[in-house]
Amino acid sequence: MSGFRGGYLGKILRIDLTRKKHLTQPLPPELAYNYIGGYGVGGRILYDEVPPWVGAFDPQNLLIFATGPVNGTPTPVAGRHSVVSKSPLTGFFGDANAGGFWGAELKAAGYDLVVITGRAPKPTYVFIRDGEVRFGDASPYWGMDARASDRSLKRDLGDAKIQVSNIGQAGENLVRFAGILTDEANRIAGRCGLGAVMGFMKLKAVAVRGEGKVPIAHPEELRKISGEVIKFVKEDKNVQMFSKGGTPLYFGPLWQLGDTPGFNYTAKQLNPEGLSWPGGYDAILSGTRSCYLCPIGCRRISTVKEGAYSFEPNVEGPEYETVSMLGSNCGVTDAKAVAKANDLCNLFGLDTISTGGTIAFAMECFEKGLLTKEDTDGVDLRFGNAEAMIKMIEKIAFRDGFGDILAEGSRRAAKIIGKGAEEYAIQVKGVELAAHDPRVFQGGGPHYACAITGGRHTEGITIDWEILGRPRDSLGLPKPTDSPEGKGVAAKVIEDWTAFISSAGWCWFADINAAYMVEENFVKTFNAVTGLNLTLKDALLAGERIINIRKAFNVKHGATRADDKLPKRLLEEKGRTGKVVDLSKTLDEYYEARGWDKNTSKPTKETLIKLGLTDVAKEIWG
Amino acid sequence: MSGFRGGYLGKILRIDLTRKKHLTQPLPPELAYNYIGGYGVGGRILYDEVPPWVGAFDPQNLLIFATGPVNGTPTPVAGRHSVVSKSPLTGFFGDANAGGFWGAELKAAGYDLVVITGRAPKPTYVFIRDGEVRFGDASPYWGMDARASDRSLKRDLGDAKIQVSNIGQAGENLVRFAGILTDEANRIAGRCGLGAVMGFMKLKAVAVRGEGKVPIAHPEELRKISGEVIKFVKEDKNVQMFSKGGTPLYFGPLWQLGDTPGFNYTAKQLNPEGLSWPGGYDAILSGTRSCYLCPIGCRRISTVKEGAYSFEPNVEGPEYETVSMLGSNCGVTDAKAVAKANDLCNLFGLDTISTGGTIAFAMECFEKGLLTKEDTDGVDLRFGNAEAMIKMIEKIAFRDGFGDILAEGSRRAAKIIGKGAEEYAIQVKGVELAAHDPRVFQGGGPHYACAITGGRHTEGITIDWEILGRPRDSLGLPKPTDSPEGKGVAAKVIEDWTAFISSAGWCWFADINAAYMVEENFVKTFNAVTGLNLTLKDALLAGERIINIRKAFNVKHGATRADDKLPKRLLEEKGRTGKVVDLSKTLDEYYEARGWDKNTSKPTKETLIKLGLTDVAKEIWG
Repeated sequence: MSGFRGGYLGKILRIDLTRKKHLTQPLPPELAYNYIGGYGVGGRILYDEVPPWVGAFDPQNLLIFATGPVNGTPTPVAGRHSVVSKSPLTGFFGDANAGGFWGAELKAAGYDLVVITGRAPKPTYVFIRDGEVRFGDASPYWGMDARASDRSLKRDLGDAKIQVSNIGQAGENLVRFAGILTDEANRIAGRCGLGAVMGFMKLKAVAVRGEGKVPIAHPEELRKISGEVIKFVKEDKNVQMFSKGGTPLYFGPLWQLGDTPGFNYTAKQLNPEGLSWPGGYDAILSGTRSCYLCPIGCRRISTVKEGAYSFEPNVEGPEYETVSMLGSNCGVTDAKAVAKANDLCNLFGLDTISTGGTIAFAMECFEKGLLTKEDTDGVDLRFGNAEAMIKMIEKIAFRDGFGDILAEGSRRAAKIIGKGAEEYAIQVKGVELAAHDPRVFQGGGPHYACAITGGRHTEGITIDWEILGRPRDSLGLPKPTDSPEGKGVAAKVIEDWTAFISSAGWCWFADINAAYMVEENFVKTFNAVTGLNLTLKDALLAGERIINIRKAFNVKHGATRADDKLPKRLLEEKGRTGKVVDLSKTLDEYYEARGWDKNTSKPTKETLIKLGLTDVAKEIWG
Repeated sequence: MSGFRGGYLGKILRIDLTRKKHLTQPLPPELAYNYIGGYGVGGRILYDEVPPWVGAFDPQNLLIFATGPVNGTPTPVAGRHSVVSKSPLTGFFGDANAGGFWGAELKAAGYDLVVITGRAPKPTYVFIRDGEVRFGDASPYWGMDARASDRSLKRDLGDAKIQVSNIGQAGENLVRFAGILTDEANRIAGRCGLGAVMGFMKLKAVAVRGEGKVPIAHPEELRKISGEVIKFVKEDKNVQMFSKGGTPLYFGPLWQLGDTPGFNYTAKQLNPEGLSWPGGYDAILSGTRSCYLCPIGCRRISTVKEGAYSFEPNVEGPEYETVSMLGSNCGVTDAKAVAKANDLCNLFGLDTISTGGTIAFAMECFEKGLLTKEDTDGVDLRFGNAEAMIKMIEKIAFRDGFGDILAEGSRRAAKIIGKGAEEYAIQVKGVELAAHDPRVFQGGGPHYACAITGGRHTEGITIDWEILGRPRDSLGLPKPTDSPEGKGVAAKVIEDWTAFISSAGWCWFADINAAYMVEENFVKTFNAVTGLNLTLKDALLAGERIINIRKAFNVKHGATRADDKLPKRLLEEKGRTGKVVDLSKTLDEYYEARGWDKNTSKPTKETLIKLGLTDVAKEIWG
């Protein structure tokens, strides 16, 4: 008896790699209800158990794989799981999430969360099958790319239906922006460098397999809403367009808006045609695919059969972020080259956003003369040189020569290079900015500056509401105007909302594409699955609590107001639209809306107590 | 022109291992005068340059080798240099110091400090010779013990007069309490795990050699005071006794006082005879040795020619701390076994205090049934089993089997072992307590609890004044009484004083043995060397500033009041003298004397401003 009526299985699997031990703990309902799931529940555990003196590369760091209640249920567009850990890139709270089938399979295997600690004496994998846990010797897979190791593990375990989360060579080599792959290296929990934590732990893979079903509190009600959502998805012109074009669909329009970065976030123009869909992207597209029970199916399948950019046919193709970061942001306009770079990142296990951001940074340093060929091992690291970019991806993954410097991420690399290179590292808290330029939407200023996990795009950017015309009436936001006023508040509200749906287990695209029509339908679905009776206001409050527990982690670990800052370039240099980020009003507005002290950035005692975080208030304020 | 009149050379050498670059910077006189030298100047640099998001194992961590103005001058008893870094053991400020000749030689080579950052792509050594810097391939030495690598480097560089600071296998293997050795692995900057930082940086050794002289502002005056000190040292009964017996001289009397720990700080008795000098220690003693121009010469040379405990003759013998921590605290009473264990720690590069503390912790866990032979790879880890202790030292250095767990130090190991093992980890902030039991002297309570770098004995313990009858009138302390009153204040004052003399470059034994007769003579000597005109009050204020900059580093990096705590055992279980530590009065008294807020442990704004740390106040308090 788990004490839950649906959605949650009520079980946490604890794994100690040092001692090869495991145990099953109940998931306390209070923890689940207050923090929803995913990076919310995982976030609270990280806050409680990882003190400031524990580093990211430390056997007392935790690596938490976390699902939410809607994962593994028939809920549409709910195939994402989260990973949570202290980040080697930021030194603060880290999380990342990936689509696919792994989260659903973990629940079928009987667990809501897997909380891993310790460091294995030699390469190890963990296999969780219907509540049983096995530690295996991963020495044969160590050194393999993530796709080969995924397939080898399935073969050696004799079951093609196993789902694998694993790392490639980048994670093994502690590249600070290595991610954790799944689905035969086709999906990645990319950001914050959590693959390096897995590498430090000498954990090559977590394989899961199960036959269990997730109980649903009100199956009829779930069937009804799900049916409506699926019907809408299949009929709505916009969502259908997204099904067809996937995220690369955004590339053309967002480039035009000036939102998509080019040449390391400078104002330089290029012809976006070669990377657009429809357009140059057509040449690589060979199919589409869905995550677990997703009616949208936005995943791109790509193929390049011949030439220098060829790779295994019909593997995952580059998403919008990748097209932008390894394409336009590196001055590369050939979709085939980007597809090749994307595939290498997947094989080695590199976050394409940080990889693109870091290489673009190095390209600018090179063009400005801060780096020479002598520094780059002879690589002519100019913008637009696709071969150089591809070479550098490999050098990063293996920490070879100059790649060893870039493997530290742009913030650390800039420090090593010196000569004012910091100016060209477009990052927040060490995490390279995603491909949405906050010079284009005013909510992006405070959102990125105050971001708990750095330059992310899935934590509630306001662009859909501010620029793309998506109404957010249900969240209490008016129609946006040109004025900065209200944009700080909007950033706060959309972040809270995003924290709720992401922690529950939904894909961000369920929300951003309005697949559920209105926000209330998420809450209704959540209630149908769990048997709870949340209102939309409750959901927002839970989201706010999730934001604050992660923020409190950062504060405990030494983050201050000085960490809440944007790259100078975005504040001083005009982008392609001729604008800079103006924080003069929105930042204070954001801190005030958050109830965070604007001098120290700390959540005030009142804010924490309002959210029921009295113990946290005591810890932070004494 | 350095701008200095004496003592300081005015030069900092900056080394970037990632890029194999170096440059020479001036040492700003303001920095030198405010922070004296050693871990004071090094501490301010660490505070300024290592932000909270940088971990101990991070190429942006710094490893700072720092001398003070009296190092390398004819000043007596001044052969110690400091090493400073973010500690892998505490996650906070780390420093350690070692005697020998290395600090004097660095100054002869032309530098006050060497500030190292980055991470070499392959094992590297740095050779500094008369202002010239060379990076060398240390692959041939990687895997060697510290003594062999020191000698090989001297041989390969063709100069027997080179002084080497290096690591053994423990540092290479990132053992969290690895130290940095010097003088052919005979002296060690042992505490806080700074050898592991060096290992992470892939820096095997820093070799130095030079012909330069350190200018003296008032050579006549220095000659005069030095002459008086040397005369006193040669004539004084107590100092002569210390010359003869070295630190092991303390073992017998301190054991009787209950200050020396036994059986992991429990009340269990043993016969100290086998470890005492005179006594069992005689069987291993084969000579004595001096550090750079030291008239005391307290270093022990030991030899065990035959049997299981034999080792190379005439290497450094165990000091008091080692005799206690690897002897009585592990229930081992055979001096030969302790000498062998000591030599292995020196070869592998392990801090004997943390090694002894961690093994004693594991022995207690074993005897209490928290660990079985299955856990310990078959080793019968009982108190008193010297073979088991020696085996475990090797396993720790190579992170072999259970040694991999103990290599994390007792705090982390306790977490891994679970089952309440934390209770038996006798550590503060992760650093195992040195062999002075605060249940015996009341100033030890707040001193250890609030210690910035954990369980150290060289940061100003009050035992000499409280128990051993050393007057501290010059520091404004009255004759001690039995009452706890005033002991918190005394801890603060003696810490400030110790920070001054240590940062200046003196050996702590110059002070603790009253070799300079009265405290004023240190200040006079300091003035003669530097040409400054400090009063004793100025010196104490500088010491206080040094304490506070290191404390501020901890606060920035997430330390809170909760980190200022003693092991439960010391508060609740009576030691051999039947006493527990009573913090009820002394802790508040200490915080008040320090001007640290007792709820958060932070230095108040007023305290920081009083010390001229206005910028720090702003950073901490906004």
